[in-house]
Amino acid sequence: MRDGWLVCSGCSHRIPFNAGAGQCSCGGVFLVGYDLERVKASWSVNPLKDRASTMWRYHELLPVDRPNEAVTLGEGWTPMIRIPEWEERLTLKRLWVKRDEQNPTGSFKARGFSVAVSLLKERGIEKVAVPSNGNAASALAAYAARGKLQSYVFVPMDCPGIIVEESIRYGAKTFRVDGLIHDAGKIIEEGKSSEGWVNVGTAKELGRLEGKKTMGLELAEQLSWEMPDVLLYPTGGGSGLIGIWKALGELKEMGMLQGELPRFVSVQEVGCTPVVDSFRSGAKKLVPYGDDTTSSPTGVRVPNPPAGDLILSILRETGGTAVAVTRDEILQAQAYMGYQGISSSPEGAVVFAGLLHLREAGEIRSGERVVLYNTAHALKYLEWDPPTSIPVIKNYKEYAERVNTEHRATFMNKNS
Amino acid sequence: MRDGWLVCSGCSHRIPFNAGAGQCSCGGVFLVGYDLERVKASWSVNPLKDRASTMWRYHELLPVDRPNEAVTLGEGWTPMIRIPEWEERLTLKRLWVKRDEQNPTGSFKARGFSVAVSLLKERGIEKVAVPSNGNAASALAAYAARGKLQSYVFVPMDCPGIIVEESIRYGAKTFRVDGLIHDAGKIIEEGKSSEGWVNVGTAKELGRLEGKKTMGLELAEQLSWEMPDVLLYPTGGGSGLIGIWKALGELKEMGMLQGELPRFVSVQEVGCTPVVDSFRSGAKKLVPYGDDTTSSPTGVRVPNPPAGDLILSILRETGGTAVAVTRDEILQAQAYMGYQGISSSPEGAVVFAGLLHLREAGEIRSGERVVLYNTAHALKYLEWDPPTSIPVIKNYKEYAERVNTEHRATFMNKNS
Repeated sequence: MRDGWLVCSGCSHRIPFNAGAGQCSCGGVFLVGYDLERVKASWSVNPLKDRASTMWRYHELLPVDRPNEAVTLGEGWTPMIRIPEWEERLTLKRLWVKRDEQNPTGSFKARGFSVAVSLLKERGIEKVAVPSNGNAASALAAYAARGKLQSYVFVPMDCPGIIVEESIRYGAKTFRVDGLIHDAGKIIEEGKSSEGWVNVGTAKELGRLEGKKTMGLELAEQLSWEMPDVLLYPTGGGSGLIGIWKALGELKEMGMLQGELPRFVSVQEVGCTPVVDSFRSGAKKLVPYGDDTTSSPTGVRVPNPPAGDLILSILRETGGTAVAVTRDEILQAQAYMGYQGISSSPEGAVVFAGLLHLREAGEIRSGERVVLYNTAHALKYLEWDPPTSIPVIKNYKEYAERVNTEHRATFMNKNS
Repeated sequence: MRDGWLVCSGCSHRIPFNAGAGQCSCGGVFLVGYDLERVKASWSVNPLKDRASTMWRYHELLPVDRPNEAVTLGEGWTPMIRIPEWEERLTLKRLWVKRDEQNPTGSFKARGFSVAVSLLKERGIEKVAVPSNGNAASALAAYAARGKLQSYVFVPMDCPGIIVEESIRYGAKTFRVDGLIHDAGKIIEEGKSSEGWVNVGTAKELGRLEGKKTMGLELAEQLSWEMPDVLLYPTGGGSGLIGIWKALGELKEMGMLQGELPRFVSVQEVGCTPVVDSFRSGAKKLVPYGDDTTSSPTGVRVPNPPAGDLILSILRETGGTAVAVTRDEILQAQAYMGYQGISSSPEGAVVFAGLLHLREAGEIRSGERVVLYNTAHALKYLEWDPPTSIPVIKNYKEYAERVNTEHRATFMNKNS
C-alpha cells in the first residue's frame, strides 16, 4: 500500500507499510495506518452512497494497491435489522442485529479473507493455510478458490462437519487435527517453510483485521453516522472486535462520527473465557485459558487470543465489559432469535445471551441503543444441536386424527 | 393495493385488485397490474440509488398498502458477480451469477414470503401453510415468525433434514408427508377450512410471485438497465421465472430497458421434466410429469407446476428454450461453482449444467452475455451428497509423513 504505514498496538512503534509483517517484537499486533485526510477527500469527490453495495465501497480504507482487482465474491454491506419485540421486552430504545451471516460463505469471515487473499495475490503468494474452529476455514477456502490460490485448512476434531464439508467443496486441502485451534496453528507454523504455506491465522497478517473493520464502517454508515450506546461482539480471536473499534476510531478522526464510541462488550462461553476472566480480574495482559476448555466447538473457543491485550484495553477504554454465558443460555438465545426469523450461529446467539445478562444486571440500561453482531448462519452448526424428530403423515385425515390425541400435544410442544 | 388490478395470464380477464384471489376459472394465474406511469413518476422524485439496499427499494411495484410496515428481514439486493474463468472457457462475453443464496434463510424464497406475509398481515391472517420441497418451508417459517403469524409446513419425506430443522428453528409446525409436494399440497387444501390455514403454496396467492419479481428488477438495475442475451433459471413451480419475466416486462413498458428481453431458459433435472418435455414437444398446455419422478429431492422437482402454460409461453415468446440435466451433471456443476468460491445449491448448479449443455449445442453462442440464478446455499443440501471423510493428524510430523506416502496421493485426489 503506497500511502500507508504500520503502528504496533502494544508499543506504538511505527514502521513503513509491509503486507508481510507479523506481530511486533513486543508482542503487540501491527495495525495499518492511513492518510485519513486523503480518504476524506476521496469520499467527498466520490460519495459513498453512489458506490457498490459491498464492503469494497470503503476501498480507500483497505490496504490493497489495486481495489479493482480485489478478490471479491460480493461480501459486506449486510443488512441491519431491528427487533421491535425485544426492544419492548428489554425496554431498549433500539436493538439492531447486524446480519453478517448473509455474507458469501455464510459468515463474517468472508470480509477478512476478501482483503487478505487480495493482498496475498498482489504479492504473488500461491499457498495459504489457516487454523480454524470453522468459519475461517470455509471462508479462506472460498476466497482462495476465487483468487486461484491453493488453501490448506486445519480444524479441530469437533469442528462442525458441515463447515468441513463446505471447505472441501471450495477446494481446500482439509485436515482434522487431534487437538484445539492452537495445535492446528502449530502444525502450520512448523510446516510453513518446507510446505511454502503463508499462515493467515488470526493476527498473522494484516488483511483479515482490515477486512473485518468494514463491519464497523458499515455500522456507522447504516446508522447515519450516529453511534449506538453499546455494541456486543462474540469474542474468540477478537480481531472482529478490534477491527470494528479501529474503524470507528478512523471515522472519528475523520470527523464523521457524532458523540462517543459505543461501549464494547466481549461475550464468551463458559468453559473458555480468557477475555472475561482477564477483564474481570483487572489484568492488563491477557491470561490464557489453558487447554482444559469445556466450551462448545465454535468460533468463540480460543484459549489464547493473540491480540488479547488489545481486546482488554478496548473494553476498558470504551467503558465496556466482558461477560460469560452458558451453553444452555446460548441455545435459548438461538431459539429466541429463530422465533424472530433470524438464523443465528451459536456465536451470534452468544451475544444475545450476553445482552440478557447485562440488561438484567443493569449494565445495559433502559432506553439504550444496542447493536448485536450475528456472525454466521445457524445452518452451519445444525449438528451442534441434534436434529429434532418430526411427525410423518400421509394425508389430512392422519393430521386431523393426531390433532385430537395426546400425541399431538407432545410433539407440538417439542415442535414450537 | 389501492391502485392495482389483476389480469389473468390465461384469458386476460381483468378484475379489481384482491389479495385473496386464487387462480382464474380458466386455469390461468392472476398477475398484479400497476399504474406504471405513477411508479415512474415516483422513481424520478425519489431515485432508486438513494434507497435501502433491500428489495423494498422497489416498493411501488409491490402490492402492499403500507411498505413501511412490511415484514422484512433484509432480503434482496443480492450481489451479482462475474466468473471470468468460465467466460474464457466458454468464450462468453459475460457470465454473471446472481447470488440469491445470500438472502435471509439462505435462498431466493425469502423474497416471495416477505411480500406474501406482509400482504397476509395487512389482511389480519394468523395461520399460514405451505407445501414445499424445502426452501419455501424455511422461508415461510422465518417470515411468519417475524410477522407473528403461525406457520405450518408440509414437506416430502426426503426433504433435506437441514431445511426441516431450520423450519422448526423458526417456529414452524413442521410435518413430513409420505408422498411428493402435491400430496403435501392436498393436505393443506383438505384441511384449510377446518384449521384456518391460508395456503401460500405456488400460485395460491399473489405476493410470492410479486416478491420474486424483484430478482428481475435487481438484475436490470445492477446491469445498468442493459439486458443480457440469455437468462437461465432452475424451474420447479416456475414462479421465479415468471416473476423475472413480469419484472422485465414492467420495466420495458416504463421505457427503462434497452433492447430485447433476454432469452429465458428453464433447466430441470432428468427424472422430473414436465417443462422440458412439454416445451420440446411443442405443447401449448403443460403436460404433468406424473408421480413416477426419479429426480433428486430439490426445488426443481415439481411434476405439475400450476402456472406451467405461462412458463411455456414465456420460453417461446422470448426465443428461449428448456433443457434437462442429469444428477451427475448437477454434482459436477456444483463442484465447478465451488471451485470458483460460490456456494450453490443443487438448483443453482442445475443452471450451470444447463449452460454447459446449451453452449456445447450452440444454442448459447460465443460472445453472448449470460446470467445464471443461484437460488440457494449448498449448505442446505449437504446431506444430498454424503460428507467426505478427511484425514486426521496430530502434528506436523504426521502431516509430513503422509505427504510421502501413497495414502496422501489418494486422499488428496478425493479431497480436491
